[in-house]
Amino acid sequence: MTAAACPFCEQLADLKAVPADELVAELPHSIVLLGRWQYYRGYCVVVYRRHVTELSQLDDAARRGYFDDMCHVAGAIEDCFQPRKLNYELLGNQCPHLHWHIFPRYAEDPERLQPVWVALDRAEANLACRDMFQSGPCPRKETVAALRKELLAH
Amino acid sequence: MTAAACPFCEQLADLKAVPADELVAELPHSIVLLGRWQYYRGYCVVVYRRHVTELSQLDDAARRGYFDDMCHVAGAIEDCFQPRKLNYELLGNQCPHLHWHIFPRYAEDPERLQPVWVALDRAEANLACRDMFQSGPCPRKETVAALRKELLAH
Repeated sequence: MTAAACPFCEQLADLKAVPADELVAELPHSIVLLGRWQYYRGYCVVVYRRHVTELSQLDDAARRGYFDDMCHVAGAIEDCFQPRKLNYELLGNQCPHLHWHIFPRYAEDPERLQPVWVALDRAEANLACRDMFQSGPCPRKETVAALRKELLAH
Repeated sequence: MTAAACPFCEQLADLKAVPADELVAELPHSIVLLGRWQYYRGYCVVVYRRHVTELSQLDDAARRGYFDDMCHVAGAIEDCFQPRKLNYELLGNQCPHLHWHIFPRYAEDPERLQPVWVALDRAEANLACRDMFQSGPCPRKETVAALRKELLAH
């Protein structure tokens, strides 16, 4: 996938067009988007500002700076929502532009011992299940507002 | 899970007892184990040296040092085996002791666009499938030797 066809590059090129219930924050090395699956309340995607596809393509300062951004967001999710665990994932199998998934995992999730992808694979195939995993327990705007406040406080 | 019942702490307490086809290297902040699922040839698990369960519990220097270890291993996997992509995951849902999974993803994997866990969930439930995903294309000792050589060279 070239930068020209990359959905993250498209969003980065026009941040004003990103919906207010999706754009959480702009950080030094990344932008923070509220992810699609809000069953995992506070799930965020931390997108590197340039079209780079592997961590090894970054120099040391950029790689650490991007990691610091990711940890900053993770800390805000922990402080806001007190999950039992965080799951950090940098995959890029479908869209290789560097992006960290940060999934908070909650005690009441019956599949809390499994990676999220087993449930999300099922959700993709079933409309009612998909709706539940997308909607989550709270309106997206509330989650974005809580995260923004927390990120600004630190 | 307390440190006393933690399988990684058990291995860390007696590294000499870890099989030679499992222990890849000892790095400043971590040990590197060859993972169970060698269908993803070179899959490694980078285990933090102490029983810590979230990145936010580390101070900045330790967190960055552990991340640098992980990136060092990732670079070695890329140089040895030229995957189409790396997947990095820090989960800890079952065993919370900090450990990075580094899964190389290959062009010939028919499920290369999906996270590994969908296939591995299936593999856990089916013996023939499990064997295939565990064995992979090469003996573990060869993979360990190639990775060790590469890690020492940089």
